[in-house]
Amino acid sequence: MKRRQFITGASVGGLAAAASTLAAPAIAQQRIEMVIVSTWPRDFPGLGTGAQRLAKRIQDVSDGRIQVQYFAAGERVGAFDAFDEVASGNAQAYHAADYYWKGKHPGWAYFTSVPFGLTENEMGAWIEYMGGQELWDELAGEFGLKCLPTGNTGVQMGGWFNKEINSAEELKGLKIRMPGLGGDVMAKLGASPVSLPGGQIYENLVSGAIDATEWVGPWNDYFLKFYEAAKYYYYPGMHEPGGFLSFGMNKSWWEGLSKADQLIIRACTGQENHQMMAEFNANNGTYLRKLIDEHGVELRAFNDDVYDAFGRASAEVYEEARSHSPLANRIHESFAKARADVGGWMKLSEGAYYAQRNRVLGL
Amino acid sequence: MKRRQFITGASVGGLAAAASTLAAPAIAQQRIEMVIVSTWPRDFPGLGTGAQRLAKRIQDVSDGRIQVQYFAAGERVGAFDAFDEVASGNAQAYHAADYYWKGKHPGWAYFTSVPFGLTENEMGAWIEYMGGQELWDELAGEFGLKCLPTGNTGVQMGGWFNKEINSAEELKGLKIRMPGLGGDVMAKLGASPVSLPGGQIYENLVSGAIDATEWVGPWNDYFLKFYEAAKYYYYPGMHEPGGFLSFGMNKSWWEGLSKADQLIIRACTGQENHQMMAEFNANNGTYLRKLIDEHGVELRAFNDDVYDAFGRASAEVYEEARSHSPLANRIHESFAKARADVGGWMKLSEGAYYAQRNRVLGL
Repeated sequence: MKRRQFITGASVGGLAAAASTLAAPAIAQQRIEMVIVSTWPRDFPGLGTGAQRLAKRIQDVSDGRIQVQYFAAGERVGAFDAFDEVASGNAQAYHAADYYWKGKHPGWAYFTSVPFGLTENEMGAWIEYMGGQELWDELAGEFGLKCLPTGNTGVQMGGWFNKEINSAEELKGLKIRMPGLGGDVMAKLGASPVSLPGGQIYENLVSGAIDATEWVGPWNDYFLKFYEAAKYYYYPGMHEPGGFLSFGMNKSWWEGLSKADQLIIRACTGQENHQMMAEFNANNGTYLRKLIDEHGVELRAFNDDVYDAFGRASAEVYEEARSHSPLANRIHESFAKARADVGGWMKLSEGAYYAQRNRVLGL
Repeated sequence: MKRRQFITGASVGGLAAAASTLAAPAIAQQRIEMVIVSTWPRDFPGLGTGAQRLAKRIQDVSDGRIQVQYFAAGERVGAFDAFDEVASGNAQAYHAADYYWKGKHPGWAYFTSVPFGLTENEMGAWIEYMGGQELWDELAGEFGLKCLPTGNTGVQMGGWFNKEINSAEELKGLKIRMPGLGGDVMAKLGASPVSLPGGQIYENLVSGAIDATEWVGPWNDYFLKFYEAAKYYYYPGMHEPGGFLSFGMNKSWWEGLSKADQLIIRACTGQENHQMMAEFNANNGTYLRKLIDEHGVELRAFNDDVYDAFGRASAEVYEEARSHSPLANRIHESFAKARADVGGWMKLSEGAYYAQRNRVLGL
């Protein structure tokens, strides 16, 4: 229990107050207490605000019957303690990116995003209709959890570089901030990936301690002012093409809910998938234009040579993940089949359409 | 009232029976009756099944407090009478494609899909965060309706052709089944668009009464066996790149709901946006492969010359729509700004990513 720090923040009181005004009519159904811990700083744009919106929605849709207390990262437990807090039953749910738990099992990475992986639409198809949720249930069940897809950041940018990258050879020796499996891909190509929290990236980029960084996309990146230290903004990112966030619940708690309460949670998390993706795309569009028009950011596309190298290195990273266990291998196989089938369709539909429409309209 | 035909179908009885078993506990809150009429045949894959799933979800999430009766097209009123049925208050909501109502006001087309328009992700950004919902509310309010986005079919294929189309010139004189604004675009290029219901397309294509047809995408098209009569399956479709369906409610009824009931409906429709898109993409991926592997369908991409012509004709179609009224013009302007900003982002993110990933992996 020592990692549990109780706080009495204003935000928590705010939710409780809202609940008491909603709960006026006498209701025969059981009242339910729900503590949500998240891995995002309070009010962090997109991710934090999305998780907070979800917490409020579950309470409001249930008309206050499900009483939700939401704790941002560090308010109750540290970000990366959210998993244990929920698995142990100390809290009922987390909102997080499940690839944070890949040290516990590499299969977790596939349910957020892996290099050369699935976009948001492809992830939805895999999770909902091509066996993804069943495998996620199997993996999560081993840890006493039940997870549902709950929001997505979309395709991330490839990162900010202080020089042009015209071949895979030029990645060698590059100090780049890129965590996770994307960093592993970079390491295989001779770069030196480092992991830095968001608040320390800018100073390291300005001082030259790192040569390059990725963060999220135009909206989130804009506010960190990377354009002051690195002129070239590369696309498309290979490392996180469609990161689904996860609403991970304590499995016993979930199974003890009524069917109607489970459906409330499914509907609220389902709505967040639509909502968060819309918010990221709207803001990324708006801030991409601001970066170009107001700050003279130079967009550059990774060329074929660089992407071929990313592909070879990603395949090596996959081999390491699937060799972990039969379950990890089954997750990979299912993912790869969805990528082939739905990915072929997306190339002909959205991919081909963006190319032609934007070419004709000059967008 | 003469267009109202009461029926007592098994499906309606099924929902009512389910409700009675759910409603056991005594609940103080008000019970609400809700009739939903849709524009889809019962069990029509994707659209009909999605609308039926939504109807059941609203009832189940409310734990039976909102009693939903669902009527497919023709079971209570004809498909295209759904609008008047809800606007008049005879029913509480419809599930439909709002471009069906473009004869009442051309602005409606923009909230489903227009040629050279927005994809599903772009539509979400526009509707939720870039002024789209506010304009939809203004338009719908003029007719006594309140509409929410509820499911999407994704990018449609360009259609089935019995010859290759290598230039816009070759579209002249072509008899093609393509309804709506897409058909208007074809007409401007000298083709002869015709409107045929789904069940009559195959016989017309086989007999040569039409030379080409579009329908939806690989999943829906597979079952209509167009591949037996037209060998070339063209992409990407320009006519319906991301058709959002609409849950259109009687405005007075909506405004009389409690905040919590409104949020239940928002959550259920929001979840359907995620669910239906996932279902279409999963099945389109699977059935695209079957069409190619099992039936030897020949995929062809419209070339630049053809797409340039589509673009010019679409611009003419837009001019006609926006000249209708100040509101139609404001809807167009808002749509065009979202297309420029978010469309620029999607080209760099999803578009560029699909191109590189699929090239490297050979998908």
